[in-house]
Amino acid sequence: MNWRFVINQLGLLSLLLSGAMILVGVAGWLFEWRSPDPIDNDALLALAATICGTVLVGGLLWLRTRGSAKHIGRREALLLVGVSWLFGAAVAGTPYLLWAYWHTGPGEHHPFLDPVNCYFEAMSGLTTTGATILGDDYSIEALPQSLLLWRAFTQWLGGLGIVVLFVAVLPTLGVGGKRLFRVEAPGPAPEGLRPHIRETATTLWLIYLILTGVEVIALKIAGMSWFDSFCHTFTTLSTAGFSPKDASLGHYASPAIHTIVIIFMVLAGVNFGLYYQLSRKRFRKVLQDTELRVYLGLLLVGTAIVTLSLINSPITLTKDLTVVEPSVASAIHHGVFTTVSIQTTTGYSTADFNLWPFAAQAVLVMAMLVGGSAGSTAGGIKIIRVWIALKVILAEIEHVFRPHVVRPLRLGNSVIDDEMKLGSIAYILGILILAVVGGWSVMMIEQWYGSGTCDFKTAATSSIACLFNVGPGLGHVGAIENYEWLTTGSKVLLTLLMALGRLEVFAIIVLVMPRFWRAD
Amino acid sequence: MNWRFVINQLGLLSLLLSGAMILVGVAGWLFEWRSPDPIDNDALLALAATICGTVLVGGLLWLRTRGSAKHIGRREALLLVGVSWLFGAAVAGTPYLLWAYWHTGPGEHHPFLDPVNCYFEAMSGLTTTGATILGDDYSIEALPQSLLLWRAFTQWLGGLGIVVLFVAVLPTLGVGGKRLFRVEAPGPAPEGLRPHIRETATTLWLIYLILTGVEVIALKIAGMSWFDSFCHTFTTLSTAGFSPKDASLGHYASPAIHTIVIIFMVLAGVNFGLYYQLSRKRFRKVLQDTELRVYLGLLLVGTAIVTLSLINSPITLTKDLTVVEPSVASAIHHGVFTTVSIQTTTGYSTADFNLWPFAAQAVLVMAMLVGGSAGSTAGGIKIIRVWIALKVILAEIEHVFRPHVVRPLRLGNSVIDDEMKLGSIAYILGILILAVVGGWSVMMIEQWYGSGTCDFKTAATSSIACLFNVGPGLGHVGAIENYEWLTTGSKVLLTLLMALGRLEVFAIIVLVMPRFWRAD
Repeated sequence: MNWRFVINQLGLLSLLLSGAMILVGVAGWLFEWRSPDPIDNDALLALAATICGTVLVGGLLWLRTRGSAKHIGRREALLLVGVSWLFGAAVAGTPYLLWAYWHTGPGEHHPFLDPVNCYFEAMSGLTTTGATILGDDYSIEALPQSLLLWRAFTQWLGGLGIVVLFVAVLPTLGVGGKRLFRVEAPGPAPEGLRPHIRETATTLWLIYLILTGVEVIALKIAGMSWFDSFCHTFTTLSTAGFSPKDASLGHYASPAIHTIVIIFMVLAGVNFGLYYQLSRKRFRKVLQDTELRVYLGLLLVGTAIVTLSLINSPITLTKDLTVVEPSVASAIHHGVFTTVSIQTTTGYSTADFNLWPFAAQAVLVMAMLVGGSAGSTAGGIKIIRVWIALKVILAEIEHVFRPHVVRPLRLGNSVIDDEMKLGSIAYILGILILAVVGGWSVMMIEQWYGSGTCDFKTAATSSIACLFNVGPGLGHVGAIENYEWLTTGSKVLLTLLMALGRLEVFAIIVLVMPRFWRAD
Repeated sequence: MNWRFVINQLGLLSLLLSGAMILVGVAGWLFEWRSPDPIDNDALLALAATICGTVLVGGLLWLRTRGSAKHIGRREALLLVGVSWLFGAAVAGTPYLLWAYWHTGPGEHHPFLDPVNCYFEAMSGLTTTGATILGDDYSIEALPQSLLLWRAFTQWLGGLGIVVLFVAVLPTLGVGGKRLFRVEAPGPAPEGLRPHIRETATTLWLIYLILTGVEVIALKIAGMSWFDSFCHTFTTLSTAGFSPKDASLGHYASPAIHTIVIIFMVLAGVNFGLYYQLSRKRFRKVLQDTELRVYLGLLLVGTAIVTLSLINSPITLTKDLTVVEPSVASAIHHGVFTTVSIQTTTGYSTADFNLWPFAAQAVLVMAMLVGGSAGSTAGGIKIIRVWIALKVILAEIEHVFRPHVVRPLRLGNSVIDDEMKLGSIAYILGILILAVVGGWSVMMIEQWYGSGTCDFKTAATSSIACLFNVGPGLGHVGAIENYEWLTTGSKVLLTLLMALGRLEVFAIIVLVMPRFWRAD
């Protein structure tokens, strides 16, 4: 194991996060300075202190290991990816903790006083999950703008992955970068992304930046403040779902804002490799893409079922829990928004879908499991894997009565080989087992140590919502509730599930396998 | 498609079922004659009428299609297996229906007056599921002994499969028999069962008969009546679980009886191919069998967890709902009995496990999913498939950091080939999807048409308990409740799930595939 290199890169990661924090600190200060409320010096100080500490430690690590061998193996790459997220969340959560220490008076309470809560919130940010421990008595809107901006920005950073940024920006990785990218790119390696990693990655970030710019302006025009536009854009494009508002997107009544957000959530759930193809003017490739078609098809079917099931139900909005009488318009409005938000694993809410009919909730849970496209910022199992699995199952059934007919399974123009088949199904089965074990563990931890408010629906969907990077679940972790009330044990477990889900299990799970650590 | 042959075999099946009914009718009459209660002529008449009708129709079908080509293809074999169960349940359910028509006075009600209930009960018998629509106001014990014996005997018949009997008894099938056997033998074709089908099948039935004799005598010695010994033996060895008592095995307080039943449930969940090996004195093969070891290991771990979770809980018995104060002895007693009953998918109960702690229920649901060994009478996914799937998933994880190390996966001394890997995990994923779709459908049907008493726990476990041929689930289909209250739609669906599960999906599901029916 090339430890020097791994430490060197972690040092670099620290410096990068410090840079991001400086940016956010300055922007946050400007926003707070423009706003009528007094500037929250504690938050700025917390950011500054974190920056100093991180630069110091990160810089030292980086300097001391400079000039390490640049050639790394697959194991170093995996280790680096896994540790990056575990370590990055610790850095990203520090400002929350420091702010709470300085801001709360003696005898006062705040969730951020607990380091586990801060780590949970930071991991939920970097993994683009969007599960939060804020709410109830500790309003999101009560946080200073600089912290809210940092909270949203961690999701934007997580969006295409800090490690992809590493690959694009930093030339130090050399050949190792290819391996990192292979691990990092969510889902089975998308076609055409493999060669010319740096060039491709740069193009991808450019696309990400352009989309960011367009959405910020669109939201501003639709009536949001600049601050809210930025925060929501950061968390839409990363399909992450932290909102600076307690009522999430339900804070805004404007259908225009909701429509813009729906469009960008859909765009963010598309394989970014297709945008790369678009930028190369390969339009036919995009139109013929199987995953894109299935993705859009699933969104259509899902929204149709959810909308239909809502037509006769009153809808409780997240804003002040206003109850809207049943109408076709509101069924479409909230049905489409929620289904898109859940299927893309964003997790914004406008209505309390925990109160919706069973049919709607079943579709939403299924949508959480399936998630978005591979190579997008969305979580979930990924559409391409589900598609392959369904094709394999159908082929297996046909195999029973036609054992001698061997028809290659196709995905567009390419043939799915046995390795891909086995890999996809094994992944799905493995991650479902993980979801079940996660849900049962939360249930058991809460039964033994908790306050007794956790039912099975809550436990099961908290595991799914974290593992698949969705954010809100059902029951007591639903749209209008949060994760703060869970016991520390459950929160640690759910934090781990977020990392496992975001890195598609492997980069984290290998870290606990003895075989991984033994010399090759 | 060789229709003549298929019809010919269905005729034969009718004759066979008639023969079984004659046997049961005579035995039932003897039992009733010996008992102090008056003989129920309606039941004997119902059996007689069914026998006449079945012999007439079956005989005609058989005679008219005699001399049909004996060579059948895979499609004929599949069709025959699928239709056998769907048709056999109709025949087996007729006595219930006729009895109810003749026995109930005007204005009286009985569940068996509804043909769907009779078909449900009969399918639950032939598929060795054990889910019943009797109970509550319509006690099982109120049925005449001849019907109770028929009810138990359908499970014994279902045990190793009427179709295996076909293969063993009837020489008409020729080469087609091999195909039938391949479809019928539950689970991946067990080693050593393939050649010499008739001889092997005969040995298997002999083993089944010997086990039956031994258990009947053991139960009689332990204090059961002859009638109850027979009924319980029929439903233990088939891991099926119909009991002639409302309180199931909880009717008996005797630990000796429970111990005997536990032993025979465990024996019935073992691959019968191993008994065949034993009869050939190949002891080492049996001792080295991976599936046997995993099966026993899982039983040990499962009972340990369930027992531990019960130590501090009071236990409600199925007999008169007596509550037993927490004690180590009763935790072991009911923990072991219930776990073995559920893991082997028998479904007997001594205690209302619906009231047990979450940890125990989670283990029980997991045990339902896994089930017994391939080649046993137990249902579930089957241990061998689960074992292969776990090995594949572990290998896939190692593949991430060691892409070039190709180690063949072994099962004992044989290597698992790619087809078996893909087949196993595709089957697991497919049947889990089916279980989820089943649970959601039951939930939705009950919400739309039902009485509103169906919660998600009930819906989900009813689907699992039927698809995996267990019998009782949790919630309102738990140990002390039954399936009668469900709507007709749900009952039809659950009946279909039982057949799908027992025939491992394929023999039923191909019947609805257009491609299956197109000429080859």
